[in-house]
Amino acid sequence: MTLQSIKYKEGKLEILDQLLLPSITKYVNVRGVEDGWKVINKMQVRGAPAIAIVGSLSLAVELFGETFDSKKTLRQEIEGKLNYLVSARPTAVNMKVAADELITLANDLCKNEAVNVDEMKQKFLEATEAMLAKDISDNKAIGTHGAEAILASIQGDGPLRVLTHCNTGSLATAGYGTALGVVRKLHELKRLEHVYCTETRPYNQGARLTAFELVHDKIPATLILDSMVAVLFRIRNIAAVVVGADRVAGNGDTANKIGTYQIAVAAKYHGVPFYVAAPLTSIDLAIPSGDRIVIEERPDREMTHVGEHRIAAPGISCWNPAFDVTPASLIKGIITEKGIFEPQELSSKVQEILQQNGNT
Amino acid sequence: MTLQSIKYKEGKLEILDQLLLPSITKYVNVRGVEDGWKVINKMQVRGAPAIAIVGSLSLAVELFGETFDSKKTLRQEIEGKLNYLVSARPTAVNMKVAADELITLANDLCKNEAVNVDEMKQKFLEATEAMLAKDISDNKAIGTHGAEAILASIQGDGPLRVLTHCNTGSLATAGYGTALGVVRKLHELKRLEHVYCTETRPYNQGARLTAFELVHDKIPATLILDSMVAVLFRIRNIAAVVVGADRVAGNGDTANKIGTYQIAVAAKYHGVPFYVAAPLTSIDLAIPSGDRIVIEERPDREMTHVGEHRIAAPGISCWNPAFDVTPASLIKGIITEKGIFEPQELSSKVQEILQQNGNT
Repeated sequence: MTLQSIKYKEGKLEILDQLLLPSITKYVNVRGVEDGWKVINKMQVRGAPAIAIVGSLSLAVELFGETFDSKKTLRQEIEGKLNYLVSARPTAVNMKVAADELITLANDLCKNEAVNVDEMKQKFLEATEAMLAKDISDNKAIGTHGAEAILASIQGDGPLRVLTHCNTGSLATAGYGTALGVVRKLHELKRLEHVYCTETRPYNQGARLTAFELVHDKIPATLILDSMVAVLFRIRNIAAVVVGADRVAGNGDTANKIGTYQIAVAAKYHGVPFYVAAPLTSIDLAIPSGDRIVIEERPDREMTHVGEHRIAAPGISCWNPAFDVTPASLIKGIITEKGIFEPQELSSKVQEILQQNGNT
Repeated sequence: MTLQSIKYKEGKLEILDQLLLPSITKYVNVRGVEDGWKVINKMQVRGAPAIAIVGSLSLAVELFGETFDSKKTLRQEIEGKLNYLVSARPTAVNMKVAADELITLANDLCKNEAVNVDEMKQKFLEATEAMLAKDISDNKAIGTHGAEAILASIQGDGPLRVLTHCNTGSLATAGYGTALGVVRKLHELKRLEHVYCTETRPYNQGARLTAFELVHDKIPATLILDSMVAVLFRIRNIAAVVVGADRVAGNGDTANKIGTYQIAVAAKYHGVPFYVAAPLTSIDLAIPSGDRIVIEERPDREMTHVGEHRIAAPGISCWNPAFDVTPASLIKGIITEKGIFEPQELSSKVQEILQQNGNT
């Protein structure tokens, strides 16, 4: 069964403690907003969508068992607690966006005279639960579109081998995953012979998290080093690469975990199709091209140490960009929950979808 | 001053303890064959040429202070102790080759009636000392040829940036280094703006050893991850890549540390010239092409652990080839102590050199 990093049912929320992975698999019970603030602040839950969903659901857990005298009291409680949750990691913008949306909903329900206090609470709980469901269903749609595109691109109906980079699975999303969702779907369709995952230095998300998910789901998988991608393409028959995205520019240029660009170059050289899997929310049409994406440079210590163990010579300078930008020319398709787009059609297609959503 | 990993002078031998690097810089006194055996066996000295030279010099240290009754006694001592040294690491073929050559020399000197016992000892000591001197002078010649070729290939006379992979410096040779010798020479000529060295997973020779040498020699240097090479080529102006070789086939295909092939692919894509630096002894004309080179696969643990610290999910399979093969088509030149050769001329030029040496 697919690894679940967030478990929610009828006022009960549990999250997989990512600080203990990969050595220990332990779920933490989140009994309310206080616990929600702690697991976000201590980074027991990570990944932008996951933070927003865990925060919102921790409020749902708290509201679930309570009764309220008036809609106004309920509205005040919602607003206060959501603002408190935003303070757990002020730079995680998704929690702020979710809080703003949920506060707007609470205000609207409060003003709506056709809704009583119990109905208001029920509708609010449903809205938070819907966030979890939507992220997972979007990821499953990405998985389906991606698997179909990859299967359509190969000859025959035999199983195939793919490569992925970093972690884009249940541990980075609300569940199922984006690029790793495509891998999961290929496996469900019994068309995956093998998936290779890169270590992903310096934080080893591939070795720690993706490998953990693949072992958990019993998907046939092998860990390789970041330096082995080209030789893998050369001597094993790899059908496709599928990676996630931190941000996709309007022209299809894609910012993603450091190392992605090098994989795309090696894929081009060996004729392996290279796909980016990302929800529409990661596509930023306001950014015309990747040149405009500023790359965060991270501390040297991430490269020079593993835990407390020094692995680099004292005194050496380091260059540690967290991301790189893969130009659209190296990308065969961008897989979203609404279908797969070539980079050159991305902007027009996404605008079309946004307009349709605006009209419904 | 260039880092010295082997220090020898008049019967005194010290080696840099590589087990303590990069945290601690400590020289170990090698007082004779017993110590020589230990430092080789415990891997305080590593690298094929270094092992042979340290072993032979440990015998020189022992013989230095002794006097011998007869040439026969001296010959017996040499043969017995060299065979003992070979047993320290039976798979390190260079020590066996050196032992065979030195035993042949001892036999020849023993038979030569024009040489007395003191002269025999003196000539034997000179032969062992010559091994150290020859490896360093060959590396310096490689450095000079490589630096000249790179400087000739660029426009203008400004300083330039280069990239190297793994460790090919004083810590892998008798001194100065092969690919790192080219870097050292560029620095001596004041033509090196900056050198980038890759971490070189899984054993981190770049981060531990190359970075250590560059810090020691005060060469302007930056450590990058193996996954950053392509983005480095894209946004910094890199004039050349220079790497070492474990073995070069007759057609120029080169086996070297895992990750070398991926760097060569990225270099090709970005138009960065890619050089291999290797002594003639690494060129094996008996192997027609890289297809014939068998690649050793190493234990998973090298990838899953750093010291005792587990960095990969339990249960994940690993693929851990120690080397890869870079095809000659990606190599601009092979830099040897006798000059730089294009892959297609390598075989004829090396045969020419070997014939000349055979005739002299």
